[in-house]
Order: sequence, then C-alpha cells, then structure tokens
Amino acid sequence: MSDPDILISEVGPRDGLQNTKIFMPTEAKKRWISALAAAGLREIEVCSFVNPKLIAQFSDADEVVAHAVTLPNVAVVALVPNFKGAERAAKTAARKISLPISASEAHSVSNVRKTIDEQVAELSRIVELRRAGGATFEINGGISTAFGCTIQGEVKQADVLRLVERVVAAGADSVSIADTVGYANPKQVREVFAAARRIAGAKLDAAHFHNTRGLGLANCLAAIEVGVRSLDSSMAGLGGCPYAPGASGNVITEDLVFMLESMGLKTGIDFAKLLDARRVLEDALPGAEFHGHLAKAGLPKGFKEAA
Amino acid sequence: MSDPDILISEVGPRDGLQNTKIFMPTEAKKRWISALAAAGLREIEVCSFVNPKLIAQFSDADEVVAHAVTLPNVAVVALVPNFKGAERAAKTAARKISLPISASEAHSVSNVRKTIDEQVAELSRIVELRRAGGATFEINGGISTAFGCTIQGEVKQADVLRLVERVVAAGADSVSIADTVGYANPKQVREVFAAARRIAGAKLDAAHFHNTRGLGLANCLAAIEVGVRSLDSSMAGLGGCPYAPGASGNVITEDLVFMLESMGLKTGIDFAKLLDARRVLEDALPGAEFHGHLAKAGLPKGFKEAA
Repeated sequence: MSDPDILISEVGPRDGLQNTKIFMPTEAKKRWISALAAAGLREIEVCSFVNPKLIAQFSDADEVVAHAVTLPNVAVVALVPNFKGAERAAKTAARKISLPISASEAHSVSNVRKTIDEQVAELSRIVELRRAGGATFEINGGISTAFGCTIQGEVKQADVLRLVERVVAAGADSVSIADTVGYANPKQVREVFAAARRIAGAKLDAAHFHNTRGLGLANCLAAIEVGVRSLDSSMAGLGGCPYAPGASGNVITEDLVFMLESMGLKTGIDFAKLLDARRVLEDALPGAEFHGHLAKAGLPKGFKEAA
Repeated sequence: MSDPDILISEVGPRDGLQNTKIFMPTEAKKRWISALAAAGLREIEVCSFVNPKLIAQFSDADEVVAHAVTLPNVAVVALVPNFKGAERAAKTAARKISLPISASEAHSVSNVRKTIDEQVAELSRIVELRRAGGATFEINGGISTAFGCTIQGEVKQADVLRLVERVVAAGADSVSIADTVGYANPKQVREVFAAARRIAGAKLDAAHFHNTRGLGLANCLAAIEVGVRSLDSSMAGLGGCPYAPGASGNVITEDLVFMLESMGLKTGIDFAKLLDARRVLEDALPGAEFHGHLAKAGLPKGFKEAA
C-alpha cells in the first residue's frame, strides 16, 4: 500500500460515540472498527480512557483496543482525558494517545475539571511516564476549542499558539488542533494552522473540525491549503453537539473522502467498503441520527477515485 | 449602502421552487421575496418564464416579477429557458434574464429540448431582440452541467470553456457557470473559473453550486479564491435533485452568509432578518424539507458580522 496523500483519522468510535446516548455493544464496536479498517482507514480513534462512571460508553475501552490492535495497517488511537487515563492506555497496545488541552480556560475546567496549566502538567506527567519506561505510545496534544468556545466565546489566536508552543515544549510527539464546537471559518483555519506550523514544524498533526455550522469540509479544504495532511472525521457525522440539536457532529468521513478523492488526493479508502462500514454502524445504533450527503446521493456517474 | 464584498444571488424562488412539488401561493411568494429583500439580498432570481404547462409553479411569473421590482435595492432576475421566455420577460421590468445553456449535449436536449448549438442560437436571438429595442434587460448565459452530467457523466473542461467563449461572442453581458447536478469539486472549480476568467474577463459572473454531495460551501470557497465575487444560493437549500432523494439542493444561503461573514467578507445581509425570511418560507411550504446548519445551531457566542 502506498502512503495516502491525506491521512483520514476516523474518530467516530470515540468522538461520535461519546456524544451518543445509546450504548453500542462491545461486539458491535469491534465489527464497526473492523469494517472501518477494511475500508482502508489507517488511523482510528477507538475509545476514550475516561472514567466509566462519567461516560459509560467507554467502559469496554480495554477490550475495544485489544481488538483494534489485531487489525492490519491500522494505527489505534485512544483519547485520554488525564494522567490516569494514560496509565490505563499504557497497559494496552494502543499506538497513540491523545490528550485534549483546551485553549479556553472556561472549557478546560468544564471539560476535564482542570485549568490549562494543570492540563499541561498532566501532559508532562504522561511524557515522564513514557520516559521512565512506563509506556510506549506516541503522545499527541489535542488543542481543543481552538477556534472559539461556547462558554467564553472568542478564543484568541495568541492563546492557541502559546499552547501549541507549550505542548511541544512539554514533549508531545505531535500537536493537533480542534474546532470542538464548530465555530471555525476557513480564513481563521488558514491563519491558525499556518502560524502553528511555524511553531511546531513537522509535529503539527491533524486538523479536527465539527460540522455544526456546515463549514466542516470548507475548513478541511482551507487546512489542506496550508499544508495539513491529516484530518479527523467521523462516519455519518456521528456525534453532534448537545447544545445544537439536529446539527451534525464531526466532519462526515464519507463526504470528506469524496471531496479529497474527487480532487485527486489519495486517501487509500474504498468507497464501497466505506458504505459497507456505514451499514454496520447503522445496524449497531438503531434510531441514531446519521448524516452525510454521499451516502444519500451516491457517487457521480463515471466517478474515478484518485489513482 | 456600501457594496458587498461578495454578492449573494438568491435563487430559491426559482431553482428551489422549481424542484418543489407543492405550489407556493402567489401571495406567499411575494411575502417571501419581500422578506429576502428586507434581509439584504440584493439580487433575487424570482421565477422562470418557462411554459406553465411544463412547470405550473411559475404560472404566476408575471405577477411575481411585478411585485419584486417594487422592492428597493433588489436586482430582479428571471430564468428564461428559450427565446419565447425572453419575450415574456421583456414585457416585465425584470433587470436581468438568465438563459441556461448546457455544456452537456445530452442534458441540453433533456432540459430545454434543444442541442447546444440551437440553444446558443436562442441566446443570439435574445441579444438581437434587445438590440432591436424589444427588451432592456441584462442578458446572462448560464452554463449548466459544467462540472459533470447525470446523463453523460464527465463533461470536459474544454467543452465548458468553448461554450464560455461562444456565450460571450453571442453578445451576453455576463456568463455564469453552474454545477447543476452537484458533481463539482474544489480543484475543478478553481481550474474552470480561473480559465473562464481568462476568456470572459469581467463578464464572468456568478458561480452556482448544488450541495448534493455536501461540497457546496467548499466549492464556493474555491471559487472565491480564484476571484469569483457573485455566488448563487438558495434559502434552506431548497430544491434538491429528484435523482438524489434526501440530498439538499442548492448551496444553503444562511450557511453561505455565515461562512462569508465569519471570514470578514461583507454580504450586506442581516442574520436576524434572514432567519425571519426563513420562517416566512417555512410557513409558505408546510411539509417541505428544509436544510441548513446555521438555522439549527445558531450563531457562535460573541459572533460579529463583517463590519
């Protein structure tokens, strides 16, 4: 398999399910993740090592990771909200962990019950855990609410860039930047990612957008224009924001793959198998709301995937 | 009122209603168009002068135009499928007519029952009508299926560009380019509009995208990047394609305005009044399918429109 031009990191099993009230049975999660891998997704965020008392959806995180790591050609990612989560992840074979660090103080306290400073300290502890031989995973710092916050409103670019610098300084292998609440616009995306690249260099990793206001794909396009080569997305736009009823959640994987492939950018993903994986998901979450244009409209007549 | 950075041409009353089975009462059309104008839309395609036996929705075209032209600061546009439609439009005070000319021979015959050559001849007849004093409207040639066709599949860029040349040569005041079926991608959009600009210069007018595969806003962004300053869109993404059940139709006006204003590009449109206009539309078409993220999610906290 040749390297894709753009790496799509499927976050549905984590970001999507985190926002879904229905518990997806462990066996169904495994089937879905297997189907995603079979479609050609090479990086999948499969769970969160959050306290199961807070989010019951991820009470089976260990078992889900244990399954996912058996799949060929898939980098298995797990979200960890804190050091304790990283310790749990360290006991699994997850390839990478991602620690969310809010650029908004208000969101940080609300989301992980820690100030930004305290969360950066968690990152340092995780780096230290690995240095001391207690873990082998890659460490990603995921800067959340980087384009605005539903609590504090505007988030200053200077605050985001300072956090990029701190995450790199703390020893993260990579930094991703997330529009957690669907506030970003393409101009802002170009500015933030171009400036972050100057700070983080090759450590600048994925862009993570939500489609809450419909700008998900336009923001992905803007990110690609300034050199981003890894994009998070979620099958069927699963998730959604509890504060925006009816709005879709993450960028929709199927539509993103269509945009990229139609532009001649290889993703390594097979459309037919991707739609198979969507059916596995639909069967596993009866009654949930599924988004996506491509799944409804189908591929254009005579469409060719990027060679 | 200062000039907007981007002119949004609202095509819902034409392109949207053309694809809607429910007849919207004439008084409701007037109310909706008035509300659109009050929100700051400065160009509205209000109807089609198509044979009412073919599309009953536009049997009241004369009355709708007569109302729309009384609204201040609105350029009233009417679609005309052929010379006969232009003759009808000439008896009204419509500011501009738009004649669709397919870049796909198969679509041309299916859509207007004429070959491409015959449709270009219609354009010439309309130009001659005006030259002879029989009309005062501006004349736009709207190149449809410019990015692909549901009947013939691929449409070659060379065919589109030759048609741009012919439309200008025939004496049209402006040329717009449309992705009638939602096949376009941002790379293709940049290529086609940049090349068309080299041929048509300042006569290159609006980009018209459908959101059938979710790429509407990304395509608008790509068009802006290569200098397009007029974009067609439809309130609530009204319309949809009969061949793509559940897929939304045109680019959604509310979401487009949000993208542009959030990027600092002035549209001259007031969000609160735009959502008022959407409510007028919803009341006028009970049971129809309305799209749009912004209408569901609302504006971001602390959002500022472009000054």
